[in-house]
Amino acid sequence: MTERNVKLTLAYDGTDFAGWQIQRSDRTVQGTLQQALERMHNHMVKVTAAGRTDAGVHATGQVANFFTDLKIPEANLTDAINSYLPPDVRVLMSRVVPEAFSARRSARMRVYSYRINNSKTALPHLRRYSLHVKRKLNTMHLNHLANQLVGRHDYTAFAAAGDSNKSKVRQVYSSCFYHDGPFIIYKIAAGSFLWKMIRSIVGTILEITGHDGDGREMAEILESGDRDQVGQTAPAHGLFLERVVYKDEKDTLFAL
Amino acid sequence: MTERNVKLTLAYDGTDFAGWQIQRSDRTVQGTLQQALERMHNHMVKVTAAGRTDAGVHATGQVANFFTDLKIPEANLTDAINSYLPPDVRVLMSRVVPEAFSARRSARMRVYSYRINNSKTALPHLRRYSLHVKRKLNTMHLNHLANQLVGRHDYTAFAAAGDSNKSKVRQVYSSCFYHDGPFIIYKIAAGSFLWKMIRSIVGTILEITGHDGDGREMAEILESGDRDQVGQTAPAHGLFLERVVYKDEKDTLFAL
Repeated sequence: MTERNVKLTLAYDGTDFAGWQIQRSDRTVQGTLQQALERMHNHMVKVTAAGRTDAGVHATGQVANFFTDLKIPEANLTDAINSYLPPDVRVLMSRVVPEAFSARRSARMRVYSYRINNSKTALPHLRRYSLHVKRKLNTMHLNHLANQLVGRHDYTAFAAAGDSNKSKVRQVYSSCFYHDGPFIIYKIAAGSFLWKMIRSIVGTILEITGHDGDGREMAEILESGDRDQVGQTAPAHGLFLERVVYKDEKDTLFAL
Repeated sequence: MTERNVKLTLAYDGTDFAGWQIQRSDRTVQGTLQQALERMHNHMVKVTAAGRTDAGVHATGQVANFFTDLKIPEANLTDAINSYLPPDVRVLMSRVVPEAFSARRSARMRVYSYRINNSKTALPHLRRYSLHVKRKLNTMHLNHLANQLVGRHDYTAFAAAGDSNKSKVRQVYSSCFYHDGPFIIYKIAAGSFLWKMIRSIVGTILEITGHDGDGREMAEILESGDRDQVGQTAPAHGLFLERVVYKDEKDTLFAL
């Protein structure tokens, strides 16, 4: 029996999930998805994702894959899987891909955004999907700092203590802030990320820009490799996994 | 002892409220606000709002007023009240106003928006704050219908059966759809509204534009005064009370 490899593009509201990775007791996105697929298949189905998002982190373009022995036509897969899923996780797209495709290993670039609601008061309906920063942010200063992170560097300073990656060298393709409605959005694209790297970067930039006379530069902190120099990790609920880019995709530059 | 009349501009996430108006058993915005003010004042405080929003309806610019005997400076009122409120309702602004001001009776215009997420799949983090409509909407057709509602008319056809207003005549200042990011937003401004009028209008426009060959016009339905001709009431979670305009405000036109 031949199995088909299915690539899923997923969106989820991270609020009520203890992150992507399956856990014995807590509700996770992987656990919820595997449960849905198990009900469809009548046997266990393992799902692999491009980014193992932490508790509270959202996604509008997570990518995952699994192997299926079901005969459901490709065009019907999205609706079929969604019918088994709760409203806080949705399949946006399903594609049958070559057997060798792995959502995790084949990924070339991950794009995340961190949303900051920079209005005077937090609007309640935005509170779960952005960090509220009351003081007026200066986008020029934010970008001066953010842009120093672009390139191939050792990001040890911005990795959480528990990060298990042997090499802390990563390639950051873009790192910048821009305005979008009531938000200031930080968008960062890299081959892959260290644990809590983005939230640590955002926390540090907010800390530096928050103090008059704090003339520290991100390049220096980066070079120091010293975790004690970085700011408090920004909260998870502002972070979105927006997009994962694969080898043969033509619009890679558009994703930046 | 002189009391000061305080005008509050409020935002709330309607998801976990049974609407504005206080109820014996359910959690309401008025109830929550009065409870907070009672704790501040050590006695009961009555709050009046410009719009008694229904269960599930959100607000980014509700206006309410109450009388206070506390000596808190005007500049500190917002933070003081917010410190007693849960995160799903926030005071955006507090102003001391003349004694005669009533958030309800002094209001000249209410502006509501109804958010439609018109992408192919519902993004989970938007699900509580917009109605997802999968089929591609035609803004020209939506506006052709919406614009017919502008003017001074009897809106009986669009009032819910339980509406208790004697006169169903209302003045609609503007009624139109526009694109905003992933949303198509319906914005309507009127002196005041009948019960469920906006959701009934949105439901009817979506019904008419959803059927090929449904050539019905809003002007005809309006003129008929026949509630059987209107579509299903659109769900509450897409609706936001955006703004209330008062007599002496100079930027009335800007609010439209």
